[in-house]
Amino acid sequence: MSSTYQKLLAKVYEIHDINKATAVLSWDKETNMPKAGTQARIQQMTTLRRLSHAMFTSDEMGELIETAAADLQDAPYDSNEASLIRYLRRSYAESRLMSDEFVQRISEVSGKAHPAWVEARQTNNFAHFQPHLVEVVKLVQEMAELYGYEDEKYDPLLDNFEHGMKTAEVRAIFNAVKEALIPLRQAIVERGTPVDDSLVHQPFPIAQQQAFAHHIADAIGYDFSRGHLGTVVHPFATSFSRDDARITTRWYPDFLNPSLFGTLHESGHAMYEQGTHPDLARTPLARGTSSGIHESQSRMMENVVGRSLGFWQAHYPKLQELFPTQLGGHDVMAFYRAVNKVQPSYIRVEADELTYNFHIILRFELEQAMLNNDLAVADLPAAWNDKMQELLGVVPPTDTEGCLQDVHWSRPGFGYFPTYALGNLYAAQFYETAVSQNPTIAEEMAQGVTTALVAWLRENIHQYGRKFTPAELVHQITGGPLTHEPFMRYVTHKFSQIYEL
Amino acid sequence: MSSTYQKLLAKVYEIHDINKATAVLSWDKETNMPKAGTQARIQQMTTLRRLSHAMFTSDEMGELIETAAADLQDAPYDSNEASLIRYLRRSYAESRLMSDEFVQRISEVSGKAHPAWVEARQTNNFAHFQPHLVEVVKLVQEMAELYGYEDEKYDPLLDNFEHGMKTAEVRAIFNAVKEALIPLRQAIVERGTPVDDSLVHQPFPIAQQQAFAHHIADAIGYDFSRGHLGTVVHPFATSFSRDDARITTRWYPDFLNPSLFGTLHESGHAMYEQGTHPDLARTPLARGTSSGIHESQSRMMENVVGRSLGFWQAHYPKLQELFPTQLGGHDVMAFYRAVNKVQPSYIRVEADELTYNFHIILRFELEQAMLNNDLAVADLPAAWNDKMQELLGVVPPTDTEGCLQDVHWSRPGFGYFPTYALGNLYAAQFYETAVSQNPTIAEEMAQGVTTALVAWLRENIHQYGRKFTPAELVHQITGGPLTHEPFMRYVTHKFSQIYEL
Repeated sequence: MSSTYQKLLAKVYEIHDINKATAVLSWDKETNMPKAGTQARIQQMTTLRRLSHAMFTSDEMGELIETAAADLQDAPYDSNEASLIRYLRRSYAESRLMSDEFVQRISEVSGKAHPAWVEARQTNNFAHFQPHLVEVVKLVQEMAELYGYEDEKYDPLLDNFEHGMKTAEVRAIFNAVKEALIPLRQAIVERGTPVDDSLVHQPFPIAQQQAFAHHIADAIGYDFSRGHLGTVVHPFATSFSRDDARITTRWYPDFLNPSLFGTLHESGHAMYEQGTHPDLARTPLARGTSSGIHESQSRMMENVVGRSLGFWQAHYPKLQELFPTQLGGHDVMAFYRAVNKVQPSYIRVEADELTYNFHIILRFELEQAMLNNDLAVADLPAAWNDKMQELLGVVPPTDTEGCLQDVHWSRPGFGYFPTYALGNLYAAQFYETAVSQNPTIAEEMAQGVTTALVAWLRENIHQYGRKFTPAELVHQITGGPLTHEPFMRYVTHKFSQIYEL
Repeated sequence: MSSTYQKLLAKVYEIHDINKATAVLSWDKETNMPKAGTQARIQQMTTLRRLSHAMFTSDEMGELIETAAADLQDAPYDSNEASLIRYLRRSYAESRLMSDEFVQRISEVSGKAHPAWVEARQTNNFAHFQPHLVEVVKLVQEMAELYGYEDEKYDPLLDNFEHGMKTAEVRAIFNAVKEALIPLRQAIVERGTPVDDSLVHQPFPIAQQQAFAHHIADAIGYDFSRGHLGTVVHPFATSFSRDDARITTRWYPDFLNPSLFGTLHESGHAMYEQGTHPDLARTPLARGTSSGIHESQSRMMENVVGRSLGFWQAHYPKLQELFPTQLGGHDVMAFYRAVNKVQPSYIRVEADELTYNFHIILRFELEQAMLNNDLAVADLPAAWNDKMQELLGVVPPTDTEGCLQDVHWSRPGFGYFPTYALGNLYAAQFYETAVSQNPTIAEEMAQGVTTALVAWLRENIHQYGRKFTPAELVHQITGGPLTHEPFMRYVTHKFSQIYEL
C-alpha cells in the first residue's frame, strides 16, 4: 500500500472518530439527556461537525485523495482501497460544493421552520407553516442547482440518499407499483374477508413488551453483545462501530404493534451495520450503502420476517405466556391476520405493509411538483387530499393528519421519502433471490428461523458496507436492475391468502 | 472587551465543546456501551483528546492568551475575564511541558500496568504488579522534574489536583489530624457503647433502593431536571454543562449504605457543577476548582448532611415504608447509629467517616516515600501493613485487601489521594462558617432540610467554579487557611455522642 494511502487512512480514521463521537452525542440527546442540556449539546455537536467538515474539505485532503488514487489506479474495482477512494472522491466533491454560508443558511431555515411546523401541526394551521415551507422549497431548488443535474432537478436531491438512482427510474417503478397495487387494495376492501385487529389494541404492560421485544430481536439475529436497546419518542437505529450498533423503541401501553415491529425494524437496520466487514472499520464504508438499501434490511426484518406466519407460529406461544389474559383466547392465525390488516388510513407511520407505498408515492409526486414550481406551496393541502383520494380512497379530515404529519419538509430533506418505498421493493427482490439460491432459507422461515437468511444477507449485502452503489449491489445479487415485480408477487400472494381473494 | 479576548473565547468554547464531547463518550462507556464497543470507543476518545490538546497547545493559542492578558491587565482580579486568563496561562504552560512523547509514554505504562494490577489484585500476587509499579514511580519522578519544584518533589504532583497547596502544609495538617484522631479512635473501640449495624445488612430489593435514592438526592437539592441518575460498577459524577450534570450509583441487593451514601456523595459533586455561574459556561472555569474542594461538596452531602440525625428523622419514615419488614422494627436512633458505626477496617472505600482519613494519610505517606526513593517498591506490602497497624490497629490478611486495593497507582496518579481527606477537612470548616453566618442553616438541618445550606454553598462556593484557587476560596470564606480543627470538633462531638464517651 502506498504511504500516501496510509496518510489518507489516518486522516479518514480521525474524521470518522469525530463523526461517530457526534453520533454518540446525538444518541445520548435522544435517550438520556435532560431537556435542559439541549443548548450545550447543540453547541458541542455543532463544533464537532464544523471540525469534521473543515478537516474533510481541506485542500490537503483533496491532494491526499488524488495522490492516493493515482498510486492505486491498478487496484481492483472491488478492493477496499479502490472502493474507499471512489467514495471519498465523490463525497469530497459534494462537500466542497457546500459553502459555509450555505450550510449556515440551511441551519437557519430549518431552525425556524421546525418549531413553526411543530406548532402548525399541533394547531392544525397550515398557514403558519406555509411561509417556512416556501423557504425550504427555495433552498432545495438552490441545492439542486448547486449540485447540478443532467435530466431532472429532483435527481441530485434523490442522489443524496440513493446514489446513482434517477428520478425517471423511480417514477417508472412507482407507476408500475401504483398500477398493480390500486386494484389489489380495492379487491381487499371490496371483496376480502374482514380482519379483526382488536386483539392488538388492548392494555399490554410495558415490562412484558420489553421482555418480548428483547426476545424477538435476539431471535432474528440482532447481536445484543454488540448493541443496546433504548427507549425514545421517535425510534431509530444508530451505530458507533460494527461492535456497538444500537436500537431504540417506543412502548404504547395499549397497542402492541409499535414495540414489536418497531424493534424488528430497527434491528434490521442495526444488523446491517453489525454485519459490515471488520476491515472497513473506522472508514465511511463501514455503514449501509444508501437509505433505500438500509430500509430494505429493516423492512426485511419487520415485514418479510416479522409479519410472516412461520415467525408467529414460532414465537406466538411465548407472547401468549406473557399476555395470557389478552391473547390466551386468540389463536396464532387470528394474531397473524391482525398484524397484517390492510386499512387505508391517513398516517404514513401507522400504515400497513401494502398501503404504506401509496403514502410514499404521494410524497414523491408532491415533492417534485413543488420543486419544479408546478405546485404552489399554498395549494399543497388540496393537492395532498386529491392524491389521498386517488391512491388510498380516503381523505384526511385535517391537515395535521394530512400534509403536516411528517417532519421531513421542515428541513430540506426532499429526496428522502422515495427511499422508504424503494426499501420495500429491494427487500422483496433480495428475498426472492435469496430463497432461489438457498432453499434452506424458506424452509427455516416456515419455522420462524432466520439463520440462513441472515447468513445470506451478511454474505451478499452487509459485509460490503458502502463499497458498492445500490444499483451495483442489486445487479451483483439479482443479475438485473431493481424491479417492482418481486414485491408485487410477494404482496399479491400474501394478501390474497389472508383476505381469501 | 477586546477583540482578541473574543477570539480567545471562541477558541476556548471550541476546545471546551470537544472536551465535553469526550466526557459524554466516557459516561456512555461506563453506563450503556456494550463491552465489545471498547476498542472503537477508545479510538474515538483518543482522537478527540489529541485534537483538543493540539488546539490548546498551539502557538496561536499562546499568543492569543498573552495578547488578551495585556489588553485586560486592568480587569479586576475576581472578574471572569482576569480569572479565565489566569487559569489559561497556567494550564497552557503546564500543557506545553507535556510533550507528545511523554503523553504517549504515560499511556503505554498505564496501558500495561492496569491489567497487571487487575490480575495481581485478583490473585493476591503483589510480585506480578511490582515491576509495573516500579515503572509508574519512575514516571511520576520524571513528571515531578518536568513540572519542576522549589521545596519538595511531591509538590508538583499534588499541585495537579490541588493547585497552590504544598506538601508541607498537607503534612502538618495530616499530622495534627493523626495526633487527635488516634486517641478518639482508640476511645471508641475501647470504651464506646457498641453499635450494631446488622440492620443495614439485610436483603433490600433494588427497585425500592432506586426510588429512595432518587427521593433523597432530590431532597438535598440535586436538580434532576438538569441531571440524570445512572447505574455503574464504579460510581462517579460528571457534567457536560451546568444544565446536564449526572450522577451514577451502584446497588447492592443486601447492603443499604452504598446506594444511599454513594448517591448523596455524587449528588454533592454534581450540585457543585450545577451551581456554577451561567456566565462561566463553555469555559474551563465552569467546574469545581480542585479535587479537594470538589470532594468537600460530596462529603458535605454524604456525611455532614446524609449521616446527620436530623436528616434521618426527616427521611427514615419513608425508608421504613419502602422496607417495612427490614426496618419496621428498628427506630431512627438505631438506624442513625448503624450508618455511623466506626470500625477500623482494611478497605478505604468501605471505611467510615472517622477512620477514612487514616487510609488517606497512609497512602499520602507511602506515595512520598516511594517518590523520594525512601521506600523500595518491593518493600511496599510490609510498609503498608506497618502503617495499618499504627494508624488503624488492624493488619490486612492479604495484599489484595492491602496495598493492591486501589486503582490509582496503576496509572501515574500520585498526588490525588490526599484530596479525599482534604475534602473532609474543607467540608467541616465550610460548614462551621456557614452555620456561624446563618443560624437558619443549623435550624433547618435539625429538620433534615438543606435549603439554606445549599443557598450558602451556591453563593460562596459553587457559583465561582474555578475562578479562585482552593486557598483563595478558603480565605475568602473563612478568613483564614485550611485547618483541621473544625473537622476535629465535628467528629469529636458527633462520635462522643454516638458512642457515649
